[in-house]
Amino acid sequence: MKVKITGVGLYLPPKIETAEELASKINKSTQWIIEKSGVNERRVSEIDVDEMGAIAGKQALGNGEKPDLIINASGVPKQTIPDTSTFYQRALGFEGIPSFSIHCTCLSFITAVNTASSLINSKTYKRILIISSDRGTIGRNFQEPESSSLLGDGAAAVVLEPSNSLEESELIYFNMKTWPSGANLTEVRGGGTNKHPQNPETTISDNLFTMDGPAIYKIARKQVYKMMLKTLKETGLERKNIDWVIPHQASGKAVDAYVSSGGFKPEKVINIISEYGNCVAASVPMALSIAVMDGKIKRGQTVLLIGTGAGLSAACALIKY
Amino acid sequence: MKVKITGVGLYLPPKIETAEELASKINKSTQWIIEKSGVNERRVSEIDVDEMGAIAGKQALGNGEKPDLIINASGVPKQTIPDTSTFYQRALGFEGIPSFSIHCTCLSFITAVNTASSLINSKTYKRILIISSDRGTIGRNFQEPESSSLLGDGAAAVVLEPSNSLEESELIYFNMKTWPSGANLTEVRGGGTNKHPQNPETTISDNLFTMDGPAIYKIARKQVYKMMLKTLKETGLERKNIDWVIPHQASGKAVDAYVSSGGFKPEKVINIISEYGNCVAASVPMALSIAVMDGKIKRGQTVLLIGTGAGLSAACALIKY
Repeated sequence: MKVKITGVGLYLPPKIETAEELASKINKSTQWIIEKSGVNERRVSEIDVDEMGAIAGKQALGNGEKPDLIINASGVPKQTIPDTSTFYQRALGFEGIPSFSIHCTCLSFITAVNTASSLINSKTYKRILIISSDRGTIGRNFQEPESSSLLGDGAAAVVLEPSNSLEESELIYFNMKTWPSGANLTEVRGGGTNKHPQNPETTISDNLFTMDGPAIYKIARKQVYKMMLKTLKETGLERKNIDWVIPHQASGKAVDAYVSSGGFKPEKVINIISEYGNCVAASVPMALSIAVMDGKIKRGQTVLLIGTGAGLSAACALIKY
Repeated sequence: MKVKITGVGLYLPPKIETAEELASKINKSTQWIIEKSGVNERRVSEIDVDEMGAIAGKQALGNGEKPDLIINASGVPKQTIPDTSTFYQRALGFEGIPSFSIHCTCLSFITAVNTASSLINSKTYKRILIISSDRGTIGRNFQEPESSSLLGDGAAAVVLEPSNSLEESELIYFNMKTWPSGANLTEVRGGGTNKHPQNPETTISDNLFTMDGPAIYKIARKQVYKMMLKTLKETGLERKNIDWVIPHQASGKAVDAYVSSGGFKPEKVINIISEYGNCVAASVPMALSIAVMDGKIKRGQTVLLIGTGAGLSAACALIKY
């Protein structure tokens, strides 16, 4: 589909929490945290997801026109009702712009890129602002050292518009799969009808993030590898034709797998996990925005967004930037 | 866009709660409830949203093929992570089908119809199952008699596929607007980062549904009227060309407004509010499914799905069934 990312934006909360600072909270050593998670430090936000997302959104919009659609593509909402997109719009100072949320946890951004491309392709919209903003540190369960070593806070945004016939920019390929047999491997059981806050049986840990990292890694590595091979086959491309791989920053090990198992050169795989941790849905657009801002990703280059999320799901989007 | 609803499905929980039964819980008379809300009775589900939705989804799929995408289009999730679509898939006994959620509260279904149509139009998918399932009775605040008189439980589903050149079926027109100045008029403040369950300042009422009905009605009536006029203008149709109006069943008064203010004949406006209450996102597809099953809506007829939702948002989709 002929679409183009015409703006990127980022919000990195200024407050840093190092592995050393986290160590005492989870009764583990600094070394243990870094070895298990690959996360040396993470950002901890003191403003809520809507304000974080609006800062990234404003930067992505630049001096351009207002968007004609705002999509929230995050892992956890600001509140149950209304959805977070309306709060971004309020924080951006807009009124009357249609807005809604797309939710599939860590894959919300990748799925939103394909969905927004289809909405542009069908001429429903022509300047879509996608914002991913997550504040995972609030939901950490310090009784579960492995998952609490991973999570960080951050927000990022992109503006998607139609590309014209002279421009190379496009969404080349998209794929997604969901295996509900893995639904319980990554959960926040609270917040809905299942373990409602008013239900006396709802426990503290029901409202916190839980993840069986090793079990997910085992399934994910295999399934993502298959999806990557299928992407190359369907597009007729080889690994050398992919200029950049932007994996979901699930863990240090998960990002490294694109090199060790995936066969991509390490310098092509964007890795921000050690500095920012796993920022849920915001990880992919954060890595994308940082790589664009650093001048790594250039117009016309081929970029593979890929990863897994709760569901258990895997998804990828291959774009020509 | 050339799409066709090829299946509809419904789940009406068997347990009925009458206005008389509700009266003592909210310290109001039966008469007060019926006059204020227009709801004589509602269904109260004893199974959770995923099982409710899967029953409706199974009916919509009929004996046909598996869907190639499952979209959850509800107001409130089963839990925060993963999103509800994966639980529908589990309850349906499928594995490997991509799935995600679209969320804009009561308008989730209307927005999902347009989004799914775009995904079909872009050839990403060709048999999409959209499920809306809401269990609003769990989140009722009996200290707020007006909103708790409204809510009911229910689920409905549709299957959307491409229509061929010989078929009339299509999505003729879609529009949506969101005004964040009305964000606080309909809320469940809990369940996310704003009033996190672990935050000691989060109160019981933060986790329950709250709505300023009269304030919303005032804005909504005007904005929906404008949107309806715009729809007629942009499509070149007149009221008499619209065979059926399916409003979100927000309240008795809100549904009646399509006749009293909107100028549609009462026999054209599908009204299920007195029997089932406001079932959040499920109301529109429930009314649609019931009208199709009752033999009211026939192939080739023009159907206007329209309503307001938390945000504050308004949306409409005009389809040729």
